[in-house]
Amino acid sequence: MATLRPAAAAARPAASRLFCPSRPRASFPTPSLRAATTAGVRFKSGPYGYTQAKALVYSKYGEPSDVLHLHTHSISPSLPSSSVLLRTLAAPINPADVNTIQGTYGAKPTFSPLLGTPEPSAVGGNEGCFEVVSVGSSVSTLKKGDWVVPATTGFGSWRTHVLVEDERGLIRVDKEGLSAVQVATVSVNPSSAYRMLRDYVDLIGLSVEGYNKGRASGGAWFIQNGANSGVGRAAVQLGKLWGLRSINVVRARESKEETERLKEELKELGATVVVTEEEFLERGFAARMREEWTDGGREEVMLGLNCVGGQSASQLAKCLGEGGTMVTYGAMSKKPVALPTGLLIFKDLRFRGFWLSRWANADKEGKRRTIQEILGLVREGKFRESPVQELKWEWETEEKVLKEAVQGTLQGFRPGKGVFVFGET
Amino acid sequence: MATLRPAAAAARPAASRLFCPSRPRASFPTPSLRAATTAGVRFKSGPYGYTQAKALVYSKYGEPSDVLHLHTHSISPSLPSSSVLLRTLAAPINPADVNTIQGTYGAKPTFSPLLGTPEPSAVGGNEGCFEVVSVGSSVSTLKKGDWVVPATTGFGSWRTHVLVEDERGLIRVDKEGLSAVQVATVSVNPSSAYRMLRDYVDLIGLSVEGYNKGRASGGAWFIQNGANSGVGRAAVQLGKLWGLRSINVVRARESKEETERLKEELKELGATVVVTEEEFLERGFAARMREEWTDGGREEVMLGLNCVGGQSASQLAKCLGEGGTMVTYGAMSKKPVALPTGLLIFKDLRFRGFWLSRWANADKEGKRRTIQEILGLVREGKFRESPVQELKWEWETEEKVLKEAVQGTLQGFRPGKGVFVFGET
Repeated sequence: MATLRPAAAAARPAASRLFCPSRPRASFPTPSLRAATTAGVRFKSGPYGYTQAKALVYSKYGEPSDVLHLHTHSISPSLPSSSVLLRTLAAPINPADVNTIQGTYGAKPTFSPLLGTPEPSAVGGNEGCFEVVSVGSSVSTLKKGDWVVPATTGFGSWRTHVLVEDERGLIRVDKEGLSAVQVATVSVNPSSAYRMLRDYVDLIGLSVEGYNKGRASGGAWFIQNGANSGVGRAAVQLGKLWGLRSINVVRARESKEETERLKEELKELGATVVVTEEEFLERGFAARMREEWTDGGREEVMLGLNCVGGQSASQLAKCLGEGGTMVTYGAMSKKPVALPTGLLIFKDLRFRGFWLSRWANADKEGKRRTIQEILGLVREGKFRESPVQELKWEWETEEKVLKEAVQGTLQGFRPGKGVFVFGET
Repeated sequence: MATLRPAAAAARPAASRLFCPSRPRASFPTPSLRAATTAGVRFKSGPYGYTQAKALVYSKYGEPSDVLHLHTHSISPSLPSSSVLLRTLAAPINPADVNTIQGTYGAKPTFSPLLGTPEPSAVGGNEGCFEVVSVGSSVSTLKKGDWVVPATTGFGSWRTHVLVEDERGLIRVDKEGLSAVQVATVSVNPSSAYRMLRDYVDLIGLSVEGYNKGRASGGAWFIQNGANSGVGRAAVQLGKLWGLRSINVVRARESKEETERLKEELKELGATVVVTEEEFLERGFAARMREEWTDGGREEVMLGLNCVGGQSASQLAKCLGEGGTMVTYGAMSKKPVALPTGLLIFKDLRFRGFWLSRWANADKEGKRRTIQEILGLVREGKFRESPVQELKWEWETEEKVLKEAVQGTLQGFRPGKGVFVFGET
C-alpha cells in the first residue's frame, strides 16, 4: 500500500482486469494464502477467486540488480471473452533480455500501467513455456491444460501468471514427450540457428550441387564462433541433421582435459571440426583450414555465424570463400566487426545481421512452423536442448534472489543458461 | 641489344608476332625512324613494315617509379588471321592500376614473355580508347579506323600499340560525337557508378513506390562519400538522370570559396545535397540529415556508396534506413570499415563490396551494354566526363616522365584524372 503512489493508481485503466494486490492481501490474509506460503509453492488463488501473481518488472533502464522489482498483483477470475490466463512453467534468462533491461537492445519495451506498478512498467523476459489456466468465452483454439509459447516478442515472461488479450498471441504446442524447459527454450536460440542456417545462403542447395559434382565427403560447410552457446549448439545439431559440415570455435576451458571434453561433446552433437579460439586466432588459420578440412579450399565455406565480433569476426571473414556471407547475431567481445576493404571488394563477402525479433514479427507463420519443427525433433530425440541451470521461482522466493539470477547472466560462465522454473500450483 | 638477356630471348616464343626492336633499330636506322623522332610524333612504321611500339611494363611489384620501364618493341605487319592491331589514342591512369603494380590489387597481372622484355612482364593500365590499325584475314566485326575499348580486364593499356589475339576481346564504339578521352574513361568510373546504383538496391523501384504513395518531392535517396571522385561524379549524374536524389560528401578545398564552388559544381551536375567531410563527421549528422532533407526520416536512404572507409564509412552506415545497403568500392582512408554490431543486427544493414573486374568478367554482354548506354548519354550531352589532366605521350617522351605521371596518381590532388593522350601517328 505504501508503495502505491496516487498518480500511478489514477493511471491504472479501469478496464484492466488487474489490480494492486496490496490491499486484499493486507485485508484478507486468508488461510489458503498462509498455507501456500508455508508450503513453498506458487499461489494460485487469492480471495474471491482472484489469482495472486508476481512479476519481475522494471520502470526504467539500468542494471537488472538496480532496476528490477518483484511486483505482486492479482488477476480477476472473470476474464474478458477473448482472453487467456496462463501460468508460467519455465522462462529462460537470455542475454538479450538483460540488454533490453539495460536499454541497449534494438527493441524497446512498452512501459505500461496495467500491472498497477507505482510507475508504468515492463515485465522482463521474452520466451517461456506456459500452461493455460482458463480461457474467455470466445476463445476457440485453446483450452485449460494446453501448453503454449508466445507468438510475438516482448512478451514479458518473468512472472508467475500472464493474462493474454488474444489467443492469436500464442502458439499451442503438443506437450507430449516434452518438458516445460525444452518448450521454454525453443523460441530464441534454436529458432535463431535454424533461420541463420537457412535464410542467407542456400547451404542445402550447395550440398546437393557438391554431391552432383561427385563430392562424396560431405555436405556444404559453415563456420561459427561461440559454438558452445545455445545458438551454436543448435546450429551444430541442425547442420548435422541437414547434412552440413561445420567448423566450430569455442573458448578453451580451464584445463586441457575439460577443453578436450567440450570438443568431444560438440562432435557428438554433430560438429565436424572444433577448435579453440586460441587456435582459431593463430595467423594462417584460414590456410590450415583449407589444407586440413576443406579439400585445399575446393570446398568453400560460404556461411559464417558470428556472435563475438572484433578479431574473431575478422578471422571468420578470412575463412569464407568468394561470395560468402557472414551473419552477425551478437557481439560478445563488445568490439565491432572490422572489415578489411579487400575482403569486401575482392572476395565479394557479404555482411548481414540476424535479429530474431525482426524475423519473428515479420513472419508469424514461419515462427510457428519453425518452433513446431524443432519441438518435433526434440520429441524424436534428434535435437538435444542446451544445458540449463534451473532457477527455482517459488511464491516465497525473494526479489533479491531473482534479480541476482538475472544479473548473473552476463557475468562469467554458468553451467548452462539460467531458466526460471516455477513451483507447482 | 645490351638490355636483352639471353635467357629472356630464349623464353620469347617463336610464335609471337613481336620481337625485340633493339636489333633492327640498331641495324637499320631508316630515314622514317629519324624523321619521326625529330618530328616528335609516335612511330608507326619501322623497317619492313614493322610497327614500332613502346609500352610501360613491369616485371615485379613495387612503386611505379621503381618498377615501371619503358620497353620498345616491334610488331610484325603479317597479323595472325584472328588478330587485331590497335594504336592507343588515350589511356587513363586509375588508382586501381597503381595498386595492381604495387601488388595490392585483387587481380594479379600475368607476367608474360611476349613483349620480349628481359624478364616476363605485364603492361600497366587497364582501360583506354584504341583505333584499329589493321585486322587479320578472318576478323569480321572490326575494320581499320574503328574505335574500340577492351572487353576484358587486365588489358594493359599504357602502350602505343596493342596486338589483340581475338576481336571478341574488344568492344566497338561508335566514335561519332565523342573524343578519345571520353571513350577512354567510360569503362571504369562511370560503369562502376552505373552498376552500384542499379545492382544492389532497386532505387528506381523505390522511387516509383514513393510516387505511388503520393510523395511529390522526388525520387529515392542515396548517399556517398568521395562524391568528387570520378565514380562519385558519375553517380551524381546517373542518379539525376534516373530521378534519384543524392547526399554527397566531399573533401573541403583550401579556401571556403573553392569549397562553395565545388559544391555548386556538383549541384549543377545533379547533386541534391553536398556537404564537406567535416560537416558529415559531426556528431548528429544523421539526425540533421533526416530533419533537413529526408522528411524527418520518412524518406529512408537505402543505399550508401563508400570509397573512404574508417569513420566516414561508419557515419555513412548511420545514415542508412532499416534494411539499407552500403557498397564499398575503395578505401581512400586506408582504414577498414568498422561495423557497430547494433547497426548490423537491429537495423538489418547489409554490407557489400563492388569490384568492377568481377562484374565485367562475369557479365560481358552487360559491360558492353553499360558502356554503350553511357557513351550514348555523353554523345547526347547528358553526361559530362570528369575533369582530366591530359598527359602527352609522344614517341620521344622519356620513361622518367611517364613513370612520374603514374606515381603521381596516388599523391595529393591533381586537377583531374591523369590520362595518357598519344601523339598522332
